[in-house]
Amino acid sequence: MDEFMQAAIAEAQAGLIEGGIPIGSVLVHRGVILGRGHNRRIQQGSAIRHGEMDALENAGRLPASVYRESVLYTTLSPCAMCSGAILLYGIPRVVIGENQSFLGEEDLLRARGVQVEVVQDSTCMAMMQTFIASNPELWNEDIGESD
Amino acid sequence: MDEFMQAAIAEAQAGLIEGGIPIGSVLVHRGVILGRGHNRRIQQGSAIRHGEMDALENAGRLPASVYRESVLYTTLSPCAMCSGAILLYGIPRVVIGENQSFLGEEDLLRARGVQVEVVQDSTCMAMMQTFIASNPELWNEDIGESD
Repeated sequence: MDEFMQAAIAEAQAGLIEGGIPIGSVLVHRGVILGRGHNRRIQQGSAIRHGEMDALENAGRLPASVYRESVLYTTLSPCAMCSGAILLYGIPRVVIGENQSFLGEEDLLRARGVQVEVVQDSTCMAMMQTFIASNPELWNEDIGESD
Repeated sequence: MDEFMQAAIAEAQAGLIEGGIPIGSVLVHRGVILGRGHNRRIQQGSAIRHGEMDALENAGRLPASVYRESVLYTTLSPCAMCSGAILLYGIPRVVIGENQSFLGEEDLLRARGVQVEVVQDSTCMAMMQTFIASNPELWNEDIGESD
């Protein structure tokens, strides 16, 4: 598997070990990982630290020119918030582990010119499906759905 | 002026005093402020703490049912990231201080059924226009624009 998707999966697994929601992400610029992140809703009581947001935050402040040459890898299809962050910063390409557990704003991203690639990785799918089956209320909270 | 927009402006002014970008926001549920926030790019080296995101984060983890009865007040038209957060959580109404300095994703919000109200407040406008004129590079960084 692609080493960057592997790094995103490692982040998701780190989140799971912490008792969190297993979604991970990395921001990659010219073959170098600038930021790694995972969902921290449970660990930090956070409403905004989805995996992708955490990777962007951990990458720190970057000039627009860097985002515009970067690729965001994420284990799960990005929600409206994370997709909005991708659009804000003009990240041109997103590689998604799977979109069977949750389908985010892939159509919006594509309509705005972002290259979206879904790999449908079985490890990503198994992590999410096991988590959602065991913790439906946490999962609904994370995606803003009513219980 | 509306007390909640006043509270959002007070947050923007607090950010300015800290040396930050003067954009503030409050999340209001049934007439009670649940979270106050302001842009913390400079103060915390943050790529994701726009005013609206900071208000959502400071409000903490909330059930979907609370967001769906809430109003988000923000001194400036919300960018793609903040608009995406509004969509993720199903916040039904957004009150915007002004959209002359920056026009965010108001059309997308409206297309998804969010009630968007722009008050074109002169205090909000003056804060942003003074800041942008003095700090164009910081402002470009905050909205993902090339210098």
